[in-house]
Amino acid sequence: MKYKLAMSATEVSAYMDEVFPQVRHLGFAVENLGPGEITVSMKIGNESLRPGGTVSGPTMFTLADCASYLIILAHIGKVALAVTTNLNINFLSKPGQKDLIATARLLKLGKRLAVCDIELRSRDEEQLVAHATATYSIPPRNDAPAASSA
Amino acid sequence: MKYKLAMSATEVSAYMDEVFPQVRHLGFAVENLGPGEITVSMKIGNESLRPGGTVSGPTMFTLADCASYLIILAHIGKVALAVTTNLNINFLSKPGQKDLIATARLLKLGKRLAVCDIELRSRDEEQLVAHATATYSIPPRNDAPAASSA
Amino acid sequence: MKYKLAMSATEVSAYMDEVFPQVRHLGFAVENLGPGEITVSMKIGNESLRPGGTVSGPTMFTLADCASYLIILAHIGKVALAVTTNLNINFLSKPGQKDLIATARLLKLGKRLAVCDIELRSRDEEQLVAHATATYSIPPRNDAPAASSA
Amino acid sequence: MKYKLAMSATEVSAYMDEVFPQVRHLGFAVENLGPGEITVSMKIGNESLRPGGTVSGPTMFTLADCASYLIILAHIGKVALAVTTNLNINFLSKPGQKDLIATARLLKLGKRLAVCDIELRSRDEEQLVAHATATYSIPPRNDAPAASSA
Repeated sequence: MKYKLAMSATEVSAYMDEVFPQVRHLGFAVENLGPGEITVSMKIGNESLRPGGTVSGPTMFTLADCASYLIILAHIGKVALAVTTNLNINFLSKPGQKDLIATARLLKLGKRLAVCDIELRSRDEEQLVAHATATYSIPPRNDAPAASSA
Repeated sequence: MKYKLAMSATEVSAYMDEVFPQVRHLGFAVENLGPGEITVSMKIGNESLRPGGTVSGPTMFTLADCASYLIILAHIGKVALAVTTNLNINFLSKPGQKDLIATARLLKLGKRLAVCDIELRSRDEEQLVAHATATYSIPPRNDAPAASSA
Repeated sequence: MKYKLAMSATEVSAYMDEVFPQVRHLGFAVENLGPGEITVSMKIGNESLRPGGTVSGPTMFTLADCASYLIILAHIGKVALAVTTNLNINFLSKPGQKDLIATARLLKLGKRLAVCDIELRSRDEEQLVAHATATYSIPPRNDAPAASSA
Repeated sequence: MKYKLAMSATEVSAYMDEVFPQVRHLGFAVENLGPGEITVSMKIGNESLRPGGTVSGPTMFTLADCASYLIILAHIGKVALAVTTNLNINFLSKPGQKDLIATARLLKLGKRLAVCDIELRSRDEEQLVAHATATYSIPPRNDAPAASSA
């Protein structure tokens, strides 16, 4: 197996609640976690809906960013703090009035940079609602000579 | 002058309050509007701050998306409804605990697609906090044969 | 099946040779074509190599652009002419001195826009060399009222 | 002045010829270099033209990548070797049958990452032909503890 987890789904969930209390009201939940891949769902409530009943772009961005942050964290552990440096998102179709499901997959996990792609779908639908690619800068580890900063 | 406004700053502001009531609590305001360029500010309050006192990535995404939506709207008028199809954002430096200022500029205003870039800075600072490029799909006008949809 | 082919692999290959004679010397070949997905390989020769023996970024861009153009063409037929409007590419690891293999997958095939993602690997390797996302504008069909242009 | 040059335009040109002999036949030339900004032109010849007489997407990618590589090099010096990690390009309008001019501007020059945007125009035209944003990874300096690699 290429990727090796450093945290369990339960640990990742608990950490998300601790450091991102603001996403709790968005109803994010870790549904599945395996080497190189995570599934995070978002309950659809009123706040994240635009007029017309669809999920807003910024809400989809938040879900994509959160899912990819968590998949990195799950592999490097919470000692390190990854920072989003780039996120590119394509909005593909109108989401339904259902929970939104993000599947984030590691494309690369380097010492300094990690790259993921993220697929967003309405629950139980095959059609993509959005697709994103994100890059995170990983700070030098504690035990390494902390010379550089992005 | 290459670009010609279809709405005034006041009209754009009023329309933003009407269709995006959810951004009102984020404290967005149109500060300046001219042909091809708009400046939108965001009041920094508690909700948009991450632990550590910095503005979150999703909040910056929201501001970038809003500013570029408004600059397109200001040129095509509110009859048409542009839809974000792509947004690419680079996070460059930590924003200060100050208002965030987005300057969106039209790179292209075609019949079917509009493209903008957006620079984000803390108020009165020269350094870029983030830079984004966004593409919007413009639906066929009412008076045109409405054959196609993206 | 969601996607339906309009051309065979042989037809796509012949068309590529006809309209892109300049890619012939790059040694591009359609290896596989199915609904929603194409595999295109590139022979590694001297011209596309950088000092150090790796394939250059522009060469990888060319392969990604070509593969995604061909998968769209294979579904809409050669009557229409898709135009690249956006391409976002992440370079992930050094390619080996082997053929480069691109797998392009349709994420969306709308009337006006098509979106693909493309994975690049060295032949027989699992590790990603690069990952791209591309958007193409599809011109109005001949039989439709040709009102709009991007 | 925020950015400080480490090389002159002449030194940058000479270095380009030395390490990228393959771009010489593309007719690239450094036209202007100042703190934070470079202008690179490309002679339009037969090879880079598509059927229909326009410059191909890959050729524009090559010019954008080259210009942004050179502006980083001009500031960090040739000791370090920056590597493209991400390039996002929007194609905006058909270029004329004229030289193509790229203006690359530093958006960020960090210890580990540099970000540029690049505007492409036909010579003496105001309209944008393409717009790109690129990120480069900067390897640890020789004098620093070379612990990390992207």
